[in-house]
Amino acid sequence: MTKPILIVGGGPAGLAAAHSLATFGQPCVLVEKADRLGGAPILEGYAKLVPSGEWARDAIGGMVERTAGHDLVEVKTGATVTAFSGAVGNFTAALSNGETLDLSAAILCTGFTHFDSANKPEWGFGTYPDVVTTSQVELMISSGQGVRCPSDGRKPQRVAILLCVGSRDRQIGREWCSKICCTVSANLAMEIREELPDCHVYIYYMDIRTFGLYETTYYWRSQEEFKVKYIKARIAEVTSDGEKLIVKGEDTLVKRPITIPFDLVVHAIGMDPNVDNPRLSAVFGVDLEPHGYIGKANSYAATGLTNKTGVFVAGSATGPETIDDSIAQGKAAAMAALEQRQLAARLVS
Amino acid sequence: MTKPILIVGGGPAGLAAAHSLATFGQPCVLVEKADRLGGAPILEGYAKLVPSGEWARDAIGGMVERTAGHDLVEVKTGATVTAFSGAVGNFTAALSNGETLDLSAAILCTGFTHFDSANKPEWGFGTYPDVVTTSQVELMISSGQGVRCPSDGRKPQRVAILLCVGSRDRQIGREWCSKICCTVSANLAMEIREELPDCHVYIYYMDIRTFGLYETTYYWRSQEEFKVKYIKARIAEVTSDGEKLIVKGEDTLVKRPITIPFDLVVHAIGMDPNVDNPRLSAVFGVDLEPHGYIGKANSYAATGLTNKTGVFVAGSATGPETIDDSIAQGKAAAMAALEQRQLAARLVS
Repeated sequence: MTKPILIVGGGPAGLAAAHSLATFGQPCVLVEKADRLGGAPILEGYAKLVPSGEWARDAIGGMVERTAGHDLVEVKTGATVTAFSGAVGNFTAALSNGETLDLSAAILCTGFTHFDSANKPEWGFGTYPDVVTTSQVELMISSGQGVRCPSDGRKPQRVAILLCVGSRDRQIGREWCSKICCTVSANLAMEIREELPDCHVYIYYMDIRTFGLYETTYYWRSQEEFKVKYIKARIAEVTSDGEKLIVKGEDTLVKRPITIPFDLVVHAIGMDPNVDNPRLSAVFGVDLEPHGYIGKANSYAATGLTNKTGVFVAGSATGPETIDDSIAQGKAAAMAALEQRQLAARLVS
Repeated sequence: MTKPILIVGGGPAGLAAAHSLATFGQPCVLVEKADRLGGAPILEGYAKLVPSGEWARDAIGGMVERTAGHDLVEVKTGATVTAFSGAVGNFTAALSNGETLDLSAAILCTGFTHFDSANKPEWGFGTYPDVVTTSQVELMISSGQGVRCPSDGRKPQRVAILLCVGSRDRQIGREWCSKICCTVSANLAMEIREELPDCHVYIYYMDIRTFGLYETTYYWRSQEEFKVKYIKARIAEVTSDGEKLIVKGEDTLVKRPITIPFDLVVHAIGMDPNVDNPRLSAVFGVDLEPHGYIGKANSYAATGLTNKTGVFVAGSATGPETIDDSIAQGKAAAMAALEQRQLAARLVS
């Protein structure tokens, strides 16, 4: 029997990699630092996911069940990898819980860390209770509570979603685009309108990046079927007049200052590199790319590979990524790990 | 020995799927309708690819070599699949060359068809020889000819790249976004500036969709390092004053009509569904999604699956896609096909 493959991170990419390998007959050890599997969609309580429309608890919860329930997948939650040594086919890992593992390869599916809106104070988060994040609104919906103003529990009549909070913002050291927030926000806007048909929902954007087929199912559908309104604007600040939140900015299409009152302001928070990446880089010997994500091989012949032979990477560990592409990349990295074993076997035989 | 898996389409996704399976020891038959492998990057003569920066002939050419050279991959070029019947594990395919194949599964990697700019006549293609497509400029660069005005062979001093030609255009029945043209155009603009440092390059856009980390390496780098200029505009028409091409439109940021002369106008052409999709749908029994791409399972637990058991799909066959995600999806579909075989074996045993 071949040694297990280590999967670090139990989000969509890691679940997909582990399940694929196990289905194929390859034992895996899935190590997750949180106390349960599922990654951001489960840990942060996402509602309906882009683009499948499945509820996170069903879709990713289902992936957790089938993966954790597989007899070839050993799950270690509440644990991190503290040391990793050896070479491809013969790695040894030490875990924070004191265990030692013998492994043939590793796949890093360590994901991202959500931008902390406290780092964008001029947009009102932390000052006004009714300025919240997309993750908070997801949780309001998925918990069954419904979308409410945290200050007094009322149903908002006017909601503004501000895109690019912690993305495309050089002033705060985040030049990158977080790829999926535009589409997630359009999705969230439709969910708000579905629950609160009398509520007006505005999306403030720089460029709308509902790429590919999302153009139809999110951008156009949100406008035409759900009457979501899009404003191209530069936001200056979010304040309060004592009753309403006031979003001040410049409409960059008509070049005019705009000041609009809202009940609830939602920050569409971006995807930072995982805060653990410097540590992961040191432990696994993998390079980080300039923004701080885990570097992936920049060659089409090397999908899923890192600079370290036998250590693979998939999903938003490498940069902002969608759930479905994270899953595809998880499966691809699993395939790459199997291929490498096969190549190694040929070299040996 | 298990029966071979059929891969239809020899572009990046198909090459990745076939090579992964063969490396793993699974025989494949790769059927390609063109007379050689490589898909659009090779057949249309792309230059440097996004995002690896590798030359297409090296990167995709290398994938062709290692795949076609593998003893478990049988390549059939100049052939199409005319009939496909049976069930998972026991399919039979008839090819246009008269051959019959016994197969265990099929992966459709049938790609896309480039938008034909003749369908956007008001933007000058077909009327003025110096209105060309991104594919034509790629070929000018990759062939070593260099970027020249087709009318008289001169080096252009002013180039306009028009984004969203055949994308996000409901008037001509193409509502979708082609996902990667913004980034490809920024890349192409930098290549033009590299070859012709005195040439001014303008990109006309609706929304700039250089998503994720492309924001740094394409959007900002093209502006700051290569001095490419971006104009948010609605294009009305491309005409000529007898000497120069004239791009007329409205600058949607300053709400003013703009009329600017250019030597060369480049249509950033979108990705239509493969023109063969209705036939592929009938032959393989796979559904098409509303835009005409091949439908993929809309569930995270079913990456790479179609509605037809044993028939998988990957890459731009399912909608506009990048090369690197097409490759990841090709590997993921290969993994899915292997998983299915493993599951079937368990059911039987």
